[in-house]
Amino acid sequence: MSKVLITTVPFGDKNRLPLEMLEDAGIDYLINPFNTKLSEDQLIELVSDVDVIVAGTEPITARVMDQASNLKMISRVGIGLDSVDLMAARERGIHVSHTADAPAPAVAEFTLGLMLSLLRSVHVSNTRMHNGHWERIFGRRLAEVTIGIIGVGRIGSRVLNRTKGFGTPRILVNDVMPNLDLDREFKLEWTSKEKIYHEADIISLHLPLTKKTHNMISKKHLLSMKRDAIIINTARGGIINEMDLYEVMKSGHLSGAAIDVFDQEPYDGPIKDIERCILTSHMGSMSIDCRVRMEIEATEEAIYFLSGRALKGSVPESEYLIQGEN
Amino acid sequence: MSKVLITTVPFGDKNRLPLEMLEDAGIDYLINPFNTKLSEDQLIELVSDVDVIVAGTEPITARVMDQASNLKMISRVGIGLDSVDLMAARERGIHVSHTADAPAPAVAEFTLGLMLSLLRSVHVSNTRMHNGHWERIFGRRLAEVTIGIIGVGRIGSRVLNRTKGFGTPRILVNDVMPNLDLDREFKLEWTSKEKIYHEADIISLHLPLTKKTHNMISKKHLLSMKRDAIIINTARGGIINEMDLYEVMKSGHLSGAAIDVFDQEPYDGPIKDIERCILTSHMGSMSIDCRVRMEIEATEEAIYFLSGRALKGSVPESEYLIQGEN
Repeated sequence: MSKVLITTVPFGDKNRLPLEMLEDAGIDYLINPFNTKLSEDQLIELVSDVDVIVAGTEPITARVMDQASNLKMISRVGIGLDSVDLMAARERGIHVSHTADAPAPAVAEFTLGLMLSLLRSVHVSNTRMHNGHWERIFGRRLAEVTIGIIGVGRIGSRVLNRTKGFGTPRILVNDVMPNLDLDREFKLEWTSKEKIYHEADIISLHLPLTKKTHNMISKKHLLSMKRDAIIINTARGGIINEMDLYEVMKSGHLSGAAIDVFDQEPYDGPIKDIERCILTSHMGSMSIDCRVRMEIEATEEAIYFLSGRALKGSVPESEYLIQGEN
Repeated sequence: MSKVLITTVPFGDKNRLPLEMLEDAGIDYLINPFNTKLSEDQLIELVSDVDVIVAGTEPITARVMDQASNLKMISRVGIGLDSVDLMAARERGIHVSHTADAPAPAVAEFTLGLMLSLLRSVHVSNTRMHNGHWERIFGRRLAEVTIGIIGVGRIGSRVLNRTKGFGTPRILVNDVMPNLDLDREFKLEWTSKEKIYHEADIISLHLPLTKKTHNMISKKHLLSMKRDAIIINTARGGIINEMDLYEVMKSGHLSGAAIDVFDQEPYDGPIKDIERCILTSHMGSMSIDCRVRMEIEATEEAIYFLSGRALKGSVPESEYLIQGEN
């Protein structure tokens, strides 16, 4: 009997369907008993006899793979592959799939909500009001600011879509490969990251964590942003240097930030002292509908793999190249 | 020399233009020295020699007018007229104007931000993360829920507009007079308030405070809403009974609420103990651009009045009828 280890939690919580799919296929499964994001060592404790990992963002390293002699497939619930050593997987003949599209609508909508909260200091007023302090804080409307989107793929382009009803802000965009199709729908200015840092009022990141994007935004970049700029990271921890963000905001630079993803999750670091920084618990993709879709797709992919059927979510060659070239 | 009392604060803070306009017109002015929303008694202390009040939401009652023997005009910075006794003003020959359009874009955008935060529990996660607690909370996307808008005028219709990029939620709407023009742009279901209470997942209020809407939503209405419904009030305090809202939420009913307006402002009441209720300090219209526009329009109207020119923002007869019929 094949065995699947499900590491991401919660799983099958809002909709039991993925678990029923495994049961119907006669596949044995174990859900992460630690009930939190696994460390490399915790993962090693669990993998010795599993055929497939239905994976979250825990580190699936060469060391883990070497302790998983039966492992034949990793099916990521989500899009990011920074947690999986793709080259090590390939060398060991371990197939890797992911759910590239499912999280995008949820993350994009989450990001828009963060933009609107930050622009009007809703989070600051809410905290103060709950402590009995009344202060009317001025804000800005989306149409009045310059938005900078770094990474205009599945999520970044959906963020753009959701700004449609809010007037026409100036939008600066950056990506490794400009998607000029979007220019038909939006008035975009394709430009350098440096220009976005200098000129945007709101900067939102929608790119993968790779060796190239790790610490992509450090103190000097943060300080090159406008004093009242806002930065949002719903992509991956590590793209913005966390300590640098803390120090720069502590010094009074930037009017706000929203950080949903962290180097080390669960996060419990110094940024929690910065009132004007919204902190959330890696919840970008956590809308019930998208999360259920991600769980179903990743489970389906695992079942397809184990029954020798054609796969839908195999990681494209470009992802291996990105990890390889670093 | 004419004298203007400016009661709403802050005023001329982000843009000094309205003050310069008064200075250029040779009009003397006093900005509310209490620097907070005035009580009736505080207002009486200030009005004895003023010709015009450039007004916030403080109570401009018959008693106030009787102490203001020079008062000839009230120019409201904003749209709501619940704070002005229109009949008493008319009897004393006091003209009333307001800035009906200026606040709408800011309030509508603020409301959308509240919807998105509430649907994804951003405010709850933010509070907990700042206290060192990590918990991934599930949410819903706008396209997955039924939205109910009560009051589909300048602000309510702009809220609809801003949902455009988010897919197509089911939208229930209620107004004293359905605006069927909107049906060309949106798929709307014009219905009763009761049906909205029963069926909507998010209910947002965009109507004036009148004797008819005072306590319009009390305990029985709140309890008739879905257990996981969300209610948003960026209109006026008093439309939802505050104590009832507190008790109903304390009991576990409703998954969230956002309250920007209160019976008594500044607010410091029991709702601050409800973590899942976003509280803000009457900030709906406080985007710099809209606020500046409101201040300029209200000031311009005062200057036009004092110099005998045609007015642009006179309160329409319908507003007098609404107050009169109660």
